[in-house]
Amino acid sequence: MSKILDALKKEVCEANRALETSGLVKLTWGNVSGIDRLQGLWCIKPSGVAYGDLKPEQMVVLDMEGNVTKHGSALRPSSDTKTHLHLYREFIHIGGITHTHSVYATMFAQASRELPCFGTTHADHFYGTVPVARALTPEEVADDYEHHTGVAIVERFWELGLDPVEMPAVLQAHHAPFTWGKNAMDSLKNSIALEMCAQMALGSMTLHPGLGKIPQHILEKHHLRKHGPGAYYGQQGAN
Amino acid sequence: MSKILDALKKEVCEANRALETSGLVKLTWGNVSGIDRLQGLWCIKPSGVAYGDLKPEQMVVLDMEGNVTKHGSALRPSSDTKTHLHLYREFIHIGGITHTHSVYATMFAQASRELPCFGTTHADHFYGTVPVARALTPEEVADDYEHHTGVAIVERFWELGLDPVEMPAVLQAHHAPFTWGKNAMDSLKNSIALEMCAQMALGSMTLHPGLGKIPQHILEKHHLRKHGPGAYYGQQGAN
Amino acid sequence: MSKILDALKKEVCEANRALETSGLVKLTWGNVSGIDRLQGLWCIKPSGVAYGDLKPEQMVVLDMEGNVTKHGSALRPSSDTKTHLHLYREFIHIGGITHTHSVYATMFAQASRELPCFGTTHADHFYGTVPVARALTPEEVADDYEHHTGVAIVERFWELGLDPVEMPAVLQAHHAPFTWGKNAMDSLKNSIALEMCAQMALGSMTLHPGLGKIPQHILEKHHLRKHGPGAYYGQQGAN
Amino acid sequence: MSKILDALKKEVCEANRALETSGLVKLTWGNVSGIDRLQGLWCIKPSGVAYGDLKPEQMVVLDMEGNVTKHGSALRPSSDTKTHLHLYREFIHIGGITHTHSVYATMFAQASRELPCFGTTHADHFYGTVPVARALTPEEVADDYEHHTGVAIVERFWELGLDPVEMPAVLQAHHAPFTWGKNAMDSLKNSIALEMCAQMALGSMTLHPGLGKIPQHILEKHHLRKHGPGAYYGQQGAN
Repeated sequence: MSKILDALKKEVCEANRALETSGLVKLTWGNVSGIDRLQGLWCIKPSGVAYGDLKPEQMVVLDMEGNVTKHGSALRPSSDTKTHLHLYREFIHIGGITHTHSVYATMFAQASRELPCFGTTHADHFYGTVPVARALTPEEVADDYEHHTGVAIVERFWELGLDPVEMPAVLQAHHAPFTWGKNAMDSLKNSIALEMCAQMALGSMTLHPGLGKIPQHILEKHHLRKHGPGAYYGQQGAN
Repeated sequence: MSKILDALKKEVCEANRALETSGLVKLTWGNVSGIDRLQGLWCIKPSGVAYGDLKPEQMVVLDMEGNVTKHGSALRPSSDTKTHLHLYREFIHIGGITHTHSVYATMFAQASRELPCFGTTHADHFYGTVPVARALTPEEVADDYEHHTGVAIVERFWELGLDPVEMPAVLQAHHAPFTWGKNAMDSLKNSIALEMCAQMALGSMTLHPGLGKIPQHILEKHHLRKHGPGAYYGQQGAN
Repeated sequence: MSKILDALKKEVCEANRALETSGLVKLTWGNVSGIDRLQGLWCIKPSGVAYGDLKPEQMVVLDMEGNVTKHGSALRPSSDTKTHLHLYREFIHIGGITHTHSVYATMFAQASRELPCFGTTHADHFYGTVPVARALTPEEVADDYEHHTGVAIVERFWELGLDPVEMPAVLQAHHAPFTWGKNAMDSLKNSIALEMCAQMALGSMTLHPGLGKIPQHILEKHHLRKHGPGAYYGQQGAN
Repeated sequence: MSKILDALKKEVCEANRALETSGLVKLTWGNVSGIDRLQGLWCIKPSGVAYGDLKPEQMVVLDMEGNVTKHGSALRPSSDTKTHLHLYREFIHIGGITHTHSVYATMFAQASRELPCFGTTHADHFYGTVPVARALTPEEVADDYEHHTGVAIVERFWELGLDPVEMPAVLQAHHAPFTWGKNAMDSLKNSIALEMCAQMALGSMTLHPGLGKIPQHILEKHHLRKHGPGAYYGQQGAN
């Protein structure tokens, strides 16, 4: 069991360090977590520590009630921990979560604008429009800001009938994006993809105000050649 | 024969690695191929492999029917292979092809907007407006998406009477750009040029909505001082 | 006493070098200073020296009257020295100041546009709208440009009833931003945050002309979870 | 005499290499030259050679008639050589020239838009609006494109009564910027400054359509604190 946890801590540590080297994050504006579903344990970045200094043994390991366990460091976990926890509890097929304030995705979140699918780059990663989760009420903020952030995201997915595996991203109004994936690294890749798609969308909308979405048959084709049982992108058996 | 193929695999490998180092491509969103017209063999990046890990011996070598040959690796070739193949068969004077989802060129492609020639940077590389190839129909997508992508590109060139040597680029609607050139590295340079021209054009259009194209005599001058029999750019006998 | 000053010179030197490596500054367009309130001494970058060449012993040490002291180098201090001095005299709780011409923050300053708080990235660092300080009059410019720049900034803060600890940034009209913080490095972090917030705001305003500010209860929540007695961001006892 | 020329070749080579490392130039889209007024000799980059490979001994040395001399390499000089020559002959107080297709300055040139002075970053380097030189006529292009480019630039400066020392930059319509300075490195710095000012101006104009120029007294103050007899920026006796 310890070996699996050690590998998880290492991967989560690497994914957090990549937040900075990928250019997605400045200062300490982001965090990545990963989960071991079998053991019911997950780990996340400690709060406010610089990415370049992160070590696997500093990762904080929590249980599914959000308690810090003795399997990881005693540092205070990321301030967004309760948001991650709620997403892991509700989106039971995801294995990693990334939160950033990446520039272009955050522009959309701040403007409470959904990110429509205008092209195949988007279709390759996100099956349709990336939704916006509503702002929290004063009561929710006063009660438990980070927990209710997770609740608002999940609520929005169920409202729209979205499958979090097909739509591994959300924009929280006035805040920033969250993405997820099969594991920590996969959630990070979806953050990179989301940032590029947001930048491209802003440009396409500038060139063509009122631009319509990608035709549905092209969206489906691109998404399905990368994902699902008939996928033929990449090497067989590889990610 | 093997020496020529080895050199081709090395060049194609280097050009693929340069996709990432040049900043044109994130994740695995692009591929470069090169052809040996005498042997009727061409080679392309394997699908979904990270650029930093690519080695010449991993390049996949195909014949002009699109069969993977024993001259290269047994990895699955890029998912865009059939598009490359069709372009090599129809554009018989080109020696290399690059496909990217570079940010600014993709903004134009997603908006189905042609890229007009506003300045000499564009004229140096592309002789006039970079065209848009139409979106595929549901039938074409169902039949063979990547092959029909190539067909739509070639169809657009013949419709417009464009010479692919003078216009080494196209924007596929809802998708992204393809460029080509004398060889793999030359097609990569045209992708770099296209990306810069798209970024500059977006800015010029913002500064001056309704901006007209570059005067024809300046377009011709700049294109011809770099290309064709009277060219005087660069060193004699050099590329 | 000399040990404390040596540490201050080292920190101010590092923060100035980071102006360039962080991408905030080109050429020599920026400077950082730091103060030792107990000794009433502060130090700043020498004027026009390239960042890569800076050494701690080149830092210029001044007293609270703006006289260059023998505790530091005899180089001419930054041309913006009198602005820093006035801010240290009036904003008595700040320990470091950074001045840059960073691209996006300067766009707002040049346009004499305040920077509204549209999201939590901004709220995490700046408690509300970042103000604009007015342009100087011809008389002020003729009398003492850099001193009156400081006066105009302080005047604007008192006019608006702003606490410089809660709002550690200002945009000077037609000019560029100044930020400050607990120490030199903290003022630099606020310059990095300001630049990102300006870029994000420009994008959000493009996506949604007329966009309103972040709801007040979310602004307060984000600011207070990072600052003040109830803060729970970062590690306890850490910065 | 050879020592002075060797130093000139070294400086011009370094400035050309810095075109790429500074991010101003992609591929081979730019060139820098420098002049020794006493000897009446000047040197420029060879045409189409990659920046990373440049060596001082490859610099081409020309006389004031534009003849390649035996003091430098026998490579073909930059295709823009005649433009540089004409500027050196007419602007007798300049010592270096840089030509780039840097992205934001080129957006303005392509749109035939002057670059107004909106802030002190601009004022520090350029005393007022950076002018646009007109497009060449078909006759001028047919006769001698590069020579007439220089002629059109000089003509525009005399028309507007501009002093090339106070205004070390021009935007050529449909083409790109040229800058100059005291020497090769100084002309390169002006290209870096022009690019930043163009990017900032585009943003300020987006935030505030119809934005007016910087007040004249602030323009003068900032320009004169860096340039002219009363300058107090930088170290005394230093550049």
